[in-house]
Amino acid sequence: MGDEVKVFGFWGSPFSRRVELALRFKGIPYEYIEEDVIGNKSPLLLQYNPVHKKVPVLLHNGKPIAESLVILEYIDETWKSNPILPEDPYNKAKARFWAKFIDDKCMPAIQKAVLGPEKEREQAAEEVYDCLKALESELNGKRFFGGDTIGMVDIAGNFVGYWLRIIQEVTGVELLSAEKFPHLFKWTDEFVSCSIVGENLHPKDKVSVVIKARIDQMREAQTKAPN
Amino acid sequence: MGDEVKVFGFWGSPFSRRVELALRFKGIPYEYIEEDVIGNKSPLLLQYNPVHKKVPVLLHNGKPIAESLVILEYIDETWKSNPILPEDPYNKAKARFWAKFIDDKCMPAIQKAVLGPEKEREQAAEEVYDCLKALESELNGKRFFGGDTIGMVDIAGNFVGYWLRIIQEVTGVELLSAEKFPHLFKWTDEFVSCSIVGENLHPKDKVSVVIKARIDQMREAQTKAPN
Repeated sequence: MGDEVKVFGFWGSPFSRRVELALRFKGIPYEYIEEDVIGNKSPLLLQYNPVHKKVPVLLHNGKPIAESLVILEYIDETWKSNPILPEDPYNKAKARFWAKFIDDKCMPAIQKAVLGPEKEREQAAEEVYDCLKALESELNGKRFFGGDTIGMVDIAGNFVGYWLRIIQEVTGVELLSAEKFPHLFKWTDEFVSCSIVGENLHPKDKVSVVIKARIDQMREAQTKAPN
Repeated sequence: MGDEVKVFGFWGSPFSRRVELALRFKGIPYEYIEEDVIGNKSPLLLQYNPVHKKVPVLLHNGKPIAESLVILEYIDETWKSNPILPEDPYNKAKARFWAKFIDDKCMPAIQKAVLGPEKEREQAAEEVYDCLKALESELNGKRFFGGDTIGMVDIAGNFVGYWLRIIQEVTGVELLSAEKFPHLFKWTDEFVSCSIVGENLHPKDKVSVVIKARIDQMREAQTKAPN
């Protein structure tokens, strides 16, 4: 088709991972451009996402799209093979609901439980518990949130499916256990066992080092900050 | 078609307004159930939206859908007349981007600029300026965000299109002026002039009284709160 597909991303971003996973599931070749999001964002990234100035950006035949969930929908509508959203409007609405729930509730709660001020972490851990309980209930016996195959909610949930268990190992804070959330825990195993997912995720050792550095840095900044 | 359509909403919620506006644009009859969201949410609302326990909820033939933007997409996919989203995937992605931008950036910034702690209001007003500038730029000469007709972004933006100007009158804080944002200001006039919008919005006097009470209550609570 002569499509030119580029992804501006950052290896350590679960949001960038979403875009790459969706393209890989559909077998769409793309050029990946790694952004230096911490120190030196490229002029192209700022040009293509002037509102948020963030990764990921998908560039399709010169047209930029930002916001990972918006990009996932675009990918599913543009390349029809291996759909990641159900066709039925009601099931599609449910998938959108849960993807949004992961963004709006789960990820901020996990971030706060790990990186927030010490006195707020316990309450945030309770919020994480409620979030994971809701996901556990939605998953209820299915192999993936998408049913028998990986769908948009699984892809959106890669932070829970891969990163969270590494965060737990690094911090010693257990938020997601097999005892409390058997379905969800099993899902994280199924998710990373999928070859396309495994190939796109960075090695655990590399991720651990970066997560640890980030946590140390944030917590040190908090101890120095005035109350 | 024998469709049973119910909306669980709250008259003072711009999110509830979105759902009703979309149904009205499409000419879909519905039963409206007003929720007492402050003191006494109904068991049905809690049953239909157990995760967020919030309005709006759309109930279509017994199936509940929550989250206003998710509901808007469902409505557009279920009832095809008078589409509120473009058919082209790229233009659809752009509409989703701006609707999400209104939710994630504009509305929280406006809320903070009006209801936030006094020392944070000035900075929040600058954030609002940036948000409105981005919307102004996106609108750029079009009658509506949807082009010649009202679309999902216009409907999602009813808070900016109707409520913000009333908030300004009540507080005396001018965030959206015709001088700074000529396109956006004109759009608010066009938006409320549309008969379907006008019929669904509550009278300005009623809205003013409620907004004023809410602002007084929030600000009083802040002056009493310990630093």
